Amino acid sequence: MTEPIHRTVVPLPKAYLLLNHGPVTLVSSAADGRQNVMAASWSMPLDFDPPKVAVVIDKATLTRELIEASGEFVLNIPTRAIADQVLAAGSASGREGDKFARFGIAAEKALHVKAPLIAGCVGWLECKVIPEPRNQQTYDLFLAEVLAAWADPAVFTDGRWHFADDGQRTIHYRAGGNFFATGEAFSV
Amino acid sequence: MTEPIHRTVVPLPKAYLLLNHGPVTLVSSAADGRQNVMAASWSMPLDFDPPKVAVVIDKATLTRELIEASGEFVLNIPTRAIADQVLAAGSASGREGDKFARFGIAAEKALHVKAPLIAGCVGWLECKVIPEPRNQQTYDLFLAEVLAAWADPAVFTDGRWHFADDGQRTIHYRAGGNFFATGEAFSV
Repeated sequence: MTEPIHRTVVPLPKAYLLLNHGPVTLVSSAADGRQNVMAASWSMPLDFDPPKVAVVIDKATLTRELIEASGEFVLNIPTRAIADQVLAAGSASGREGDKFARFGIAAEKALHVKAPLIAGCVGWLECKVIPEPRNQQTYDLFLAEVLAAWADPAVFTDGRWHFADDGQRTIHYRAGGNFFATGEAFSV
Repeated sequence: MTEPIHRTVVPLPKAYLLLNHGPVTLVSSAADGRQNVMAASWSMPLDFDPPKVAVVIDKATLTRELIEASGEFVLNIPTRAIADQVLAAGSASGREGDKFARFGIAAEKALHVKAPLIAGCVGWLECKVIPEPRNQQTYDLFLAEVLAAWADPAVFTDGRWHFADDGQRTIHYRAGGNFFATGEAFSV
């Protein structure tokens, strides 16, 4: 048994705040009884309300195949505590075997899409692809509308991140298994 | 007199590493004798080699007008030391008066584009717009090829960030004048 994910609704006009600081994401997908998860650093907000996102999904990936079949995905925002799973999900292909089983990645059902919500994450954006075939074919670029957003209330409430310990911090990918943790908060 | 910016060439296949961790950027632009600078959190790498980027530029901005006129811009990567200038450049409009003069923002000539390189930054990507009118009109989304990339060798060499003090760290925008500094580096 896996514990249920602890999450509360993020109002849609605040959904962009989950991504605004540029964390690495996990892209989960599902279609035709298969599901997958990959890492994506190349994602960003695209609009406020209704919220939209942009993400790059390489043609060679199983994720691409599942997203093209379903028109849906979830952008999950992982923490330092599961950085090893992020690296594993970003390094292996789902065609070589189920990443959930291989890397002990737990997930549960989303509300609006078939793609699952990844456990151990602290933010989730349920997304429906806005079909833009030229972007998809030429640039591997997918635009999507955010249908629902969730956050772990231990670290994100009222549109604001508040990390209590280092394991909860979101992370930013560099290369070669190296990350930055999201660092000190400051105001000017 | 302003001191020259200290910068060295970043080989194009490594240019994406300047943006991979999701820092806030300053978008500088120039056309017809005018120049401007604005802040943009919504930017990301789009391809490795030749490197491409994606950035959202709102229709209401002077930056948009200058980029549409010139087909060029620079993505500058600022530090915590100039976060006040980043916030000012992101809050004011260039139509209200020259931001360089108002906020004491120094700049120097780029190599391939008319848009200037902003002083106090630690990375610079000289970009040429890839005309995609539908993206620009419908989503305020600009795709561009990176023609040249530079970094301050005090903090970025051989494709790797190495911040020696907190003022040099890149930053990530939240909202309302609140930022995160790029935090602790770690490997898994």
